[in-house]
Amino acid sequence: EPLIDHAEGQLFLTQAFNIIVEEVLCKGTDVKQKVCHEWKEPEELAELLDLELREGGEGQQKLLQRVRDVAKYSIKTSHPRFFNQQFAGVDYHALAGRFLTETLNTNLFTYEVAPVFVLMEMEVLRGLRQLVGWTEGDGIFCPGGSTSNIYAMNLARYQLFPEVKSQGLYGLPRLAIFSSPESHYSVKKGAALLGIGTDNVIMVKVDDGESKLCSLSVCFFQGAVPFLVSCTSGTTVKGAFDPLDRIADVCDKHKLWMHVDAAWGGSVLFSKQHRHLMKGADRANSVAWNPHKMLVAGLQCSALLLKDTTNLLKRCHSANATYLFQQDKFYDVNLDIGDKSVQCSRKVDCLKLWLMWKAVGSSGLAERVDKAFVHVRYLVEQMKKRDGFHLLREPEFVNVCFWFIPPSLRGKEGNADYQDRLAKVAPTIKERMMKQGTMMVGYQPLGNKVNFFRVIVFSPLVSQKDLDFFLNEIERLGDDL
Amino acid sequence: EPLIDHAEGQLFLTQAFNIIVEEVLCKGTDVKQKVCHEWKEPEELAELLDLELREGGEGQQKLLQRVRDVAKYSIKTSHPRFFNQQFAGVDYHALAGRFLTETLNTNLFTYEVAPVFVLMEMEVLRGLRQLVGWTEGDGIFCPGGSTSNIYAMNLARYQLFPEVKSQGLYGLPRLAIFSSPESHYSVKKGAALLGIGTDNVIMVKVDDGESKLCSLSVCFFQGAVPFLVSCTSGTTVKGAFDPLDRIADVCDKHKLWMHVDAAWGGSVLFSKQHRHLMKGADRANSVAWNPHKMLVAGLQCSALLLKDTTNLLKRCHSANATYLFQQDKFYDVNLDIGDKSVQCSRKVDCLKLWLMWKAVGSSGLAERVDKAFVHVRYLVEQMKKRDGFHLLREPEFVNVCFWFIPPSLRGKEGNADYQDRLAKVAPTIKERMMKQGTMMVGYQPLGNKVNFFRVIVFSPLVSQKDLDFFLNEIERLGDDL
Repeated sequence: EPLIDHAEGQLFLTQAFNIIVEEVLCKGTDVKQKVCHEWKEPEELAELLDLELREGGEGQQKLLQRVRDVAKYSIKTSHPRFFNQQFAGVDYHALAGRFLTETLNTNLFTYEVAPVFVLMEMEVLRGLRQLVGWTEGDGIFCPGGSTSNIYAMNLARYQLFPEVKSQGLYGLPRLAIFSSPESHYSVKKGAALLGIGTDNVIMVKVDDGESKLCSLSVCFFQGAVPFLVSCTSGTTVKGAFDPLDRIADVCDKHKLWMHVDAAWGGSVLFSKQHRHLMKGADRANSVAWNPHKMLVAGLQCSALLLKDTTNLLKRCHSANATYLFQQDKFYDVNLDIGDKSVQCSRKVDCLKLWLMWKAVGSSGLAERVDKAFVHVRYLVEQMKKRDGFHLLREPEFVNVCFWFIPPSLRGKEGNADYQDRLAKVAPTIKERMMKQGTMMVGYQPLGNKVNFFRVIVFSPLVSQKDLDFFLNEIERLGDDL
Repeated sequence: EPLIDHAEGQLFLTQAFNIIVEEVLCKGTDVKQKVCHEWKEPEELAELLDLELREGGEGQQKLLQRVRDVAKYSIKTSHPRFFNQQFAGVDYHALAGRFLTETLNTNLFTYEVAPVFVLMEMEVLRGLRQLVGWTEGDGIFCPGGSTSNIYAMNLARYQLFPEVKSQGLYGLPRLAIFSSPESHYSVKKGAALLGIGTDNVIMVKVDDGESKLCSLSVCFFQGAVPFLVSCTSGTTVKGAFDPLDRIADVCDKHKLWMHVDAAWGGSVLFSKQHRHLMKGADRANSVAWNPHKMLVAGLQCSALLLKDTTNLLKRCHSANATYLFQQDKFYDVNLDIGDKSVQCSRKVDCLKLWLMWKAVGSSGLAERVDKAFVHVRYLVEQMKKRDGFHLLREPEFVNVCFWFIPPSLRGKEGNADYQDRLAKVAPTIKERMMKQGTMMVGYQPLGNKVNFFRVIVFSPLVSQKDLDFFLNEIERLGDDL
């Protein structure tokens, strides 16, 4: 007597699929519907969802209602008015690839269990490397950009000190990493994880080539050995691009591993018009790029690309487990790529990107990138026409950082409490926004700058109307402050 | 003009869904169909799939054919005769949860973007912790068991030397980890990544409590500081369980962090009959458990469970990024759990497990575990009745390790070339099996034992008939060797 009934199971799956299409894809992308259906405090939401796990099971109708409830109370991140994060929108081909990936349920460790995906991952990585400007190299998909960045650190360290793999850091000199103050926090998280220490991440303002060189000298002097410069193409908050060519000169001179965290910005490489932002990327040793962000491949999809052709990735990470990576197989065991990863189980993250890429071509992906820039240009122009919107800086990319100055604060820049009052504007507007559910956008302080909004515009579902709505809505929510 | 047409997109998705149901779920679980539809050499497969990514896009019909091709040439890991790995089978409720997760496309870092899943993850972790025997604690879902194990190492190190986060390992004494020779390779991979070094993973045969204590003393003597014992509940090859209670005594005495890698074996905790295998787990500091294995939740689903109530996970991993984890939000920012992770983007891995658990209840999951043990008992009995099947050991769990001795080798144990000839049997049978596509099972050498098969039996789709088929098929494929 089987524990799983296929007919009943497939009926449930089909009914769930219909709910998903209706609630998440139709309603969830409809501007007449809300981004946050109904804001709930955690206690109330937990009760509504009846989360508790029990001894007995439940019937199909009740379970379908649960599918509906999860959809209902979740944030609609594909909604054209979700500007909160570096993921947004939906691509139906990518989504079909994701459903197929989930159903095929395999692991990217051997050709034997994932013949299609081993070859497909190689091809997708090749395609991404070509855009960086490399005709050969290596790479791997990682569970997110932080992991890709951390892998790059580990590879750079191993290249300089191969003995670290077996002997650890004990007995080695103090190591140091250079990065910029606005680089992603994963550089620090990685330094902590790898035993390098966050204090040994030296933050240099890369806008000033001289200060970098100067800091490098100081570091050598203090006995620490720098081994990596982690640059950023598309910083998280401002969307800024480090000057890669100039940094490459420094790395060449000091023989440092140059890593480019292009998790966010990498997608400009598709665009003839905007790829200049990453000029010099081909001189790097490694590039991290998340197609789950601007390309809308779906979470998660993060590639670490390497210029290396010496099998460094495998040499650094391999453990040669004989139960998985048998050497006496009847096919080319170089196709058993799993030992390149620190992970054992590794999700298939290439199919969704591959299918989307096949569907719209490189030209379609370039068009999406270009369109995002056009939208941002429009948004910035509209902001300049309105009182109350004050840009932090001219955007280089598709992040628009701005303060909303409510009428009561306009012209009061000289007042002693101006900054304190301004700091409270964004959180208050955000609270109202969440409770009314009309849209979502993030805010943050940065350095000595008080809370400002960061609106991210790239979803292929966004229209100019949504951008007008965005500005009107900020005004509506904040005009009485 | 939108780049994405919802009507066309949803039509494509629905057509792809129908193909997935037909090709992967119907044919892919049908014993009259093959596990490996048609074995292809990589060059031929790459050509068949036309993997190349091009400038222009393709039409819907061609893309649907691509979906069909990917399904066709992929291994059917849900097939009842896929015995190759520690994942297998399918659960339709979990799969519906996975489709919903993919479509909702959010990240588990803040309550703001994932209100349902923040609460759901907490509840699922609570449910798993209860089975370990903890009424309080902490935890997080990680991208696979290796990451869960590596997090445990990092936490143990941070607890002993909190300064390691900022200062790194420089200036600290040499650190050491104790594990067993048959523990998962992620212990070594983690030691390499964390800068501890694989040489400082000291392998102790845990079957012998005295040798552990003895090695511990030696280690202290040589100036290394041990900080972690990584035990295994359900080893990868043999499915063996370390004696947790006895190891806990040692850890108590020496004040060592006790981690249990129960990625594979953890699911016995659902079974009243078999949970004794993990007696003493509640005395550990951390437990890694992958419901994507025996519970069939789907890749990936790996929980790291912690006894800690001091927010160690967040203290160890946090970077306090102000753009994501604003402290002036209008809700309880303790719900912004993202800073507990080394990842930034983190997939929602709880929904599929939650929905499946709701569907069948704890009792249904227990029944699946119990049934797997019954099947293994049957398989072992049948093996003993047949000539040619020689068990490596009596299984403790659902891994059955055995040699197939072909007729030509029976009774020849004394011959000088016996081991060499036996070593070639499994790879040859495996090659024939893959090329005929009828089933899949793995093999490996271990220590001084030459290649043997490891059959893993736990998929809820498996019946006794499939086990009879398995034995007959091994005989059919190997009788002439």
